[in-house]
Amino acid sequence: MTGKSDSAIIAGFGRGLGESTAEALVRDGLKVGLLARSSENLDRIAAPHGGNFLPVPADVTDPEAVEAAVEKVEQTLGPIKCAIFNAKQFLKGSILDFPPGEFERAWRVGAFGGFVFGQAVAKRMVAREEGTIIFTGATASLRGNPTSYGFSSPKFALRSVAQSMARELGPRGIHVTHVILDGAIEGPKHPATGNDAQFKPEELAEVYLHLHKQPRSTWTHELDVRPWCEKF
Amino acid sequence: MTGKSDSAIIAGFGRGLGESTAEALVRDGLKVGLLARSSENLDRIAAPHGGNFLPVPADVTDPEAVEAAVEKVEQTLGPIKCAIFNAKQFLKGSILDFPPGEFERAWRVGAFGGFVFGQAVAKRMVAREEGTIIFTGATASLRGNPTSYGFSSPKFALRSVAQSMARELGPRGIHVTHVILDGAIEGPKHPATGNDAQFKPEELAEVYLHLHKQPRSTWTHELDVRPWCEKF
Amino acid sequence: MTGKSDSAIIAGFGRGLGESTAEALVRDGLKVGLLARSSENLDRIAAPHGGNFLPVPADVTDPEAVEAAVEKVEQTLGPIKCAIFNAKQFLKGSILDFPPGEFERAWRVGAFGGFVFGQAVAKRMVAREEGTIIFTGATASLRGNPTSYGFSSPKFALRSVAQSMARELGPRGIHVTHVILDGAIEGPKHPATGNDAQFKPEELAEVYLHLHKQPRSTWTHELDVRPWCEKF
Amino acid sequence: MTGKSDSAIIAGFGRGLGESTAEALVRDGLKVGLLARSSENLDRIAAPHGGNFLPVPADVTDPEAVEAAVEKVEQTLGPIKCAIFNAKQFLKGSILDFPPGEFERAWRVGAFGGFVFGQAVAKRMVAREEGTIIFTGATASLRGNPTSYGFSSPKFALRSVAQSMARELGPRGIHVTHVILDGAIEGPKHPATGNDAQFKPEELAEVYLHLHKQPRSTWTHELDVRPWCEKF
Repeated sequence: MTGKSDSAIIAGFGRGLGESTAEALVRDGLKVGLLARSSENLDRIAAPHGGNFLPVPADVTDPEAVEAAVEKVEQTLGPIKCAIFNAKQFLKGSILDFPPGEFERAWRVGAFGGFVFGQAVAKRMVAREEGTIIFTGATASLRGNPTSYGFSSPKFALRSVAQSMARELGPRGIHVTHVILDGAIEGPKHPATGNDAQFKPEELAEVYLHLHKQPRSTWTHELDVRPWCEKF
Repeated sequence: MTGKSDSAIIAGFGRGLGESTAEALVRDGLKVGLLARSSENLDRIAAPHGGNFLPVPADVTDPEAVEAAVEKVEQTLGPIKCAIFNAKQFLKGSILDFPPGEFERAWRVGAFGGFVFGQAVAKRMVAREEGTIIFTGATASLRGNPTSYGFSSPKFALRSVAQSMARELGPRGIHVTHVILDGAIEGPKHPATGNDAQFKPEELAEVYLHLHKQPRSTWTHELDVRPWCEKF
Repeated sequence: MTGKSDSAIIAGFGRGLGESTAEALVRDGLKVGLLARSSENLDRIAAPHGGNFLPVPADVTDPEAVEAAVEKVEQTLGPIKCAIFNAKQFLKGSILDFPPGEFERAWRVGAFGGFVFGQAVAKRMVAREEGTIIFTGATASLRGNPTSYGFSSPKFALRSVAQSMARELGPRGIHVTHVILDGAIEGPKHPATGNDAQFKPEELAEVYLHLHKQPRSTWTHELDVRPWCEKF
Repeated sequence: MTGKSDSAIIAGFGRGLGESTAEALVRDGLKVGLLARSSENLDRIAAPHGGNFLPVPADVTDPEAVEAAVEKVEQTLGPIKCAIFNAKQFLKGSILDFPPGEFERAWRVGAFGGFVFGQAVAKRMVAREEGTIIFTGATASLRGNPTSYGFSSPKFALRSVAQSMARELGPRGIHVTHVILDGAIEGPKHPATGNDAQFKPEELAEVYLHLHKQPRSTWTHELDVRPWCEKF
């Protein structure tokens, strides 16, 4: 109940990458705010972690809700030193019948959400001239495939936001980075294959932690990550 | 009054690039539908061109309006063989106070509009296995600069749509191409400098016409264009 | 026998792309110097074209021979307005047993040759503040595939030279451009398939001619070209 | 004199990045072979490090010398688990008078050397299905600037080799990675500025070590690194 520690916040939090990254940040001394839409889900995941995890249910597409969630994390856990944006939709289809509303929804979650979240944490970090903001991208951030209107287009848009923020905020002491995941993450949807052909969440979390801990003389803005046998 | 010719349609039509491109397409034998929001503006530009230009006022961010405009061009002028998307917003600002609503507006005009327009023309072209769709990009399509949240992010998103459409529709006979303009277009905002340091609309129009006329054994998907002395 | 016209020069000249491009340049009013190693081959191709083609046999990897060939074209045919570099080797193999000498040979023809040729023509064009230099690239200019040490590495190196030359010489009036060919060229090695699935040399030549004729307000530095059904 | 440990090898070794990386690898349990041309220089740097550093003077442009040096490291220090290639020349100048021999020399050290070195270590690693190969690139690996013929062109060529090797050898258990350094390294040429505006060798070394230690489910092929205030 005494002092506040420093904190982190993860948007688009879920089991797998989100949970493993949060655990890695806790091991590094941070308390972690978990931002996602379903409060039930967040509570279930956070429960075993006691005071280290703080669920802040919010819709990442709602600027006021995101602002409130970020403020709550700062007030409750302390200044945010590391913010991670993972939210995305994954919609596929032909241009011939892709519903415009779905195209919009994918952008709203995956790109607008990143802008809104990035803005909310950047405003606070800039005042302290310190902090890391990590955006999660994908191979689709670099290449528009035949049916990827609902995934690639938001990922391109998000990558642009990450670049602009890095160029604007780097000289103000904020490390903005963009991780291109090229592979599937082991989990319920992608059961372990036994040959490391998929990302292990706890190993991927080490990449995020490494980026957060890079000293300011040596910042990475963009890197790709893939399992050894992934074709690229 | 008799037979219909083939047609073209330009979205985000205005004086300068739009007008010059439309004139080039007319010289090549097409009648041209002009799509933009302001009907007054369209009427004034179209008037001197008689039956060759058809104003179809519509908001490019409204799928039903775009569908109706595209249908009207096909019914009135004949099958669309060439569709050009120029619409954009150009908003600059810091991430620290960039209004989310402006970020959304820029995407809605520059990226969602391109998706909606591309979809409306692609559906018709695919049935005929023929047609050219040209998206206008910018240097900001490739690089997110410090204050370009409201320009670069939609341009990245649009480029992804152009890539996905090219990969999906190329094998179905539709030529989808993405032009990266790196420079200013001569006009009221950028008066002629006398040394060709800016795009001349009528010369830029020749690039668009060349792309439209490329035979299917020799299609360009992406090219840049810049004045000779533009730094890059 | 009287006056000299303007001229062009094509290095890495052969049947197919080279011959078609030369014919297109002749139709545009230029006389064309043909640079390749085998004088016998050059003579046979040039013979039917009378005074419009001038064989200048030279090894593109030999700076003095290239300098002499370029000088001969200027003395005989007139100032070079357009220079095209097509030379390449195409070697594949595993890193585990790729002969270093072959790796070097591929670079010497495909990259060093481009540098040497580009230098020889640039020196002359700069004095006149006018001219076009076109380098032929490939998909391998952008992507290193598993066995492409002997093709992709020189193509990357050549692309860098083209970029540096464009940035140095553009402001001095020289148009430097890089064409990324993504597909096979119809010819003895790739017989016509009847469905335009390969480049037709005479249509590809139009792309080169279009680039040469771009006015200086509207220069393309890089573009890709591929047949309609080529996967990319 | 007893057992052999595992080893590493650094080509293009010098004070600064080379020395710091070697020290980091030693802390991680590897003995390190140092490959550079000047044996005197190598001896002086290695002396204080006792048996942990093994000078293997060799010219990286000489395939037989590189093969012998790599063999000596394996025989003396044990199987190479990590190989780093830093060698480069840095030559600037205009295309109008850039000596072809200098252009060749820059390629021979910076690209051919990387190919030769990569081949020598890859052959050994493949048999053991294990190992990391790191190539050091630069901003010039991605962009050809006006005077960078002698730096950018070899860096492009080297990047292609790194990509081809990653795609060929990844599925065989070898991690090939390409580090894009965008900034100056603190040292005699670039004295410390006191504000972390330059790479600190010992911090850069941590990036290399992190890459070497990535588990095979989570490999980075390419990343950039720059000081916080470096413009990009």
